[in-house]
Amino acid sequence: MIDKKVMDEIRKTLGKQKVFSDKEYLLTYSYDATALESPPELVVFPENEKDIQRILKIAYQNKIPVTPRGAGVGYTGGSIPLKGGIVIVFTRMNRILAIDTENFLAEVEPGVVTQHLQEEVEKKGLFYPPDPASLKTSTIGGNVAENAGGLRCYKYGVTGHYVLALEAFLITGEKIKAGSPVIKDVAGYNLKSLLVGSEGTLAVVSKITLRLIPLPQYRVSFRVDFNSLQKGAEFINYAIRNNIDPSAIEFIDRSSISAVYQYLGLSLDDQLQATVIIELDGNRLDVEERKNKFLEIVKNYDTLHCQVAETSAEQEKLWDIRRNISPALTKLNPKKINEDIVVPTAEIPGTVEYINRLAKEYDLVIPLFGHFGDGNIHTNLMLNPEKPGEMERAEIVLDKIFSHVVSVKGSISGEHGIGITKKPFMKYQFTELELELFKRLKQAFDPENLLNPGKILNFE
Amino acid sequence: MIDKKVMDEIRKTLGKQKVFSDKEYLLTYSYDATALESPPELVVFPENEKDIQRILKIAYQNKIPVTPRGAGVGYTGGSIPLKGGIVIVFTRMNRILAIDTENFLAEVEPGVVTQHLQEEVEKKGLFYPPDPASLKTSTIGGNVAENAGGLRCYKYGVTGHYVLALEAFLITGEKIKAGSPVIKDVAGYNLKSLLVGSEGTLAVVSKITLRLIPLPQYRVSFRVDFNSLQKGAEFINYAIRNNIDPSAIEFIDRSSISAVYQYLGLSLDDQLQATVIIELDGNRLDVEERKNKFLEIVKNYDTLHCQVAETSAEQEKLWDIRRNISPALTKLNPKKINEDIVVPTAEIPGTVEYINRLAKEYDLVIPLFGHFGDGNIHTNLMLNPEKPGEMERAEIVLDKIFSHVVSVKGSISGEHGIGITKKPFMKYQFTELELELFKRLKQAFDPENLLNPGKILNFE
Repeated sequence: MIDKKVMDEIRKTLGKQKVFSDKEYLLTYSYDATALESPPELVVFPENEKDIQRILKIAYQNKIPVTPRGAGVGYTGGSIPLKGGIVIVFTRMNRILAIDTENFLAEVEPGVVTQHLQEEVEKKGLFYPPDPASLKTSTIGGNVAENAGGLRCYKYGVTGHYVLALEAFLITGEKIKAGSPVIKDVAGYNLKSLLVGSEGTLAVVSKITLRLIPLPQYRVSFRVDFNSLQKGAEFINYAIRNNIDPSAIEFIDRSSISAVYQYLGLSLDDQLQATVIIELDGNRLDVEERKNKFLEIVKNYDTLHCQVAETSAEQEKLWDIRRNISPALTKLNPKKINEDIVVPTAEIPGTVEYINRLAKEYDLVIPLFGHFGDGNIHTNLMLNPEKPGEMERAEIVLDKIFSHVVSVKGSISGEHGIGITKKPFMKYQFTELELELFKRLKQAFDPENLLNPGKILNFE
Repeated sequence: MIDKKVMDEIRKTLGKQKVFSDKEYLLTYSYDATALESPPELVVFPENEKDIQRILKIAYQNKIPVTPRGAGVGYTGGSIPLKGGIVIVFTRMNRILAIDTENFLAEVEPGVVTQHLQEEVEKKGLFYPPDPASLKTSTIGGNVAENAGGLRCYKYGVTGHYVLALEAFLITGEKIKAGSPVIKDVAGYNLKSLLVGSEGTLAVVSKITLRLIPLPQYRVSFRVDFNSLQKGAEFINYAIRNNIDPSAIEFIDRSSISAVYQYLGLSLDDQLQATVIIELDGNRLDVEERKNKFLEIVKNYDTLHCQVAETSAEQEKLWDIRRNISPALTKLNPKKINEDIVVPTAEIPGTVEYINRLAKEYDLVIPLFGHFGDGNIHTNLMLNPEKPGEMERAEIVLDKIFSHVVSVKGSISGEHGIGITKKPFMKYQFTELELELFKRLKQAFDPENLLNPGKILNFE
């Protein structure tokens, strides 16, 4: 419990209009995109780095837990204040401080919305590739905390590949810098990469320097339909091996696409069992060359149908199918458990088959889709908690899926992080000693476990 | 001092043919590519991970320092056993364990020579881009320890971008795994990126999984000469902004190129003050398109001469100039201090001018060349220690160069690491608190400071 005197001190130090303990605030900032909920005692909205420092100093002195928060659209409970205390909301620190066309970089505050940054840099002929599905609301700070991925990672890599430098505050309120605004920097230990993806448990990031690249001039998309799940899954590796360098490569299974068709009021070909959407980008002639190569590949493969989208309007329409999966799936059943497992690409067909078998065996609806180019399979358990035994069966199936993933050398999380929901599965992927090393790292930064406590591991 | 009984135990455990304390061995493994020297007491050649574990267990029990070593061609003394003890040489652990064309990855032991791996993966149509200048002798283990760069980093990134997973041993002899053989993995803290570039001070790497990409089909190189250093330095940013996506972009100043010409017995145009070598790679039509764009750029810029190299033979000849810089420079003066500073690309012209001014002011020979596309300026102080005051003036100049680099937000090391030689300059780039954090990280892995002691910082 935060002492009334301490609350008053925080209000006095920051100013009333930045500090809230009203019921509706505590409720709003008690949950994220999971169904979990845990209220903070105080919600603060820093407007600059001095504010962050002031909050942390008081919190540290009084041993109050602190949870940093971007847009709160995470899937693992990472921004939920599990131990109460203070939530630091970054929505007011949403300035793009610089877009530097000479050095190809952007400097931003953590609260900048991802899509907003993308639009601004594109106006200057530059490109910020990371595109988590939540980009319309998610913030760069949140993306950095989770090392967010998205659709373009096969070609362009994840958020961490674009983070050149960070400024951050330790729980003590002391400031550190990590990394430099250059591509090569091997001085000292790689603090920057350690902070990226650390889910706000090591330090509170206050400024981010991102690498930008020239904007690709041209884009073409394809949708290819298959009469078998296996054929669709195998097609992806086949296409990649043929050197077409896709900027996005998405897989959608029958149950996902039929949910979308139902959602959009369309009717679906009975034979269709899987759809692959592929995008190529680059210079015009280059894209043209790879497009022809790709169409040749399709011709030699057993497909149902191939659609080419060249104009922006055609491409928008094609990608709309993909974007509508998440909302469409929620109509199937009231509860969604959305897992973001990753496996080596050659293990995709086997993994897809295994999950399908589990779904049948345990009588569950598990639509699959995702970024198969990088092995990232979004595995959605669409559950009806009212159905007897359904939640228990889901638990068993999840457990089996994570075991399988680790057995084929994959990871239990490709994009969403561990947060609260995946903590029980950490033991599959890591040994006791590795978990112990994580604890020692946490201690190096936050020995009293005040920063976003209860996430990744139980550090106490 | 290693006790005789302990030496015997190591010999007995590993077998005589893997353990040496003969004078010539101690001498051979007492130095690297710097002029520094410090002999070990024992040199061991593990042949498998069990050997590594056995050595470490005995070393840990007896508090003996351990220094892992690849080819020993580093420029900062990273593999020199500064505190004596055991050197672990990885030359016998040089197997490529797998080249996986399905999952686009290679599994290697640390002693694999970089060029050997490149040749083997290229036979299978795949590509391992990192190409440190030392690639004919340097090992993947050494590349990982220093997070080595090279010529292709502007387009392809550094060694760390290709490391998917590591197996390593802590000083206690306990094994850990870090990372997964997938592109996306956000489970737990990023141990992998922390180990990459940690210069063998945190753990001893025993196995490395590397990402491979499809081999570019086509390549073309250009050499462009300029009548002023500034024009050459500015040209690079100009070319990059024009979206030609170079796979290599190298700058050579007058004194470097004239050293090469002298070395090769050629005569050099009096007007030439700087040369830029650029390579484009990709699919045929793509390269063709960017080639035409680049020639257009050259036409609109004030250049002395532009040479296009299309065949492999022409390209080899062109790149030979670049490759001969290092040997040629050693003819200028007996002692070379080779610094690998990095600055944001827009700061290159100013930095080049600043170093030139220092060279004149302090009467020193400082040829400049390097990977200017990523801001990496190889700054070579070619010194004659017999000239009165020369070494002292070099000290002053180095100090000024590092201060300048940090003042424009660059890094004191882009490729070579800190090792021994750059320790004095760490205080320019990092605050007391940041250095303290490095110490805490070191302690999390190696609290008794037995692993490669005396490198990066004085941790004791």
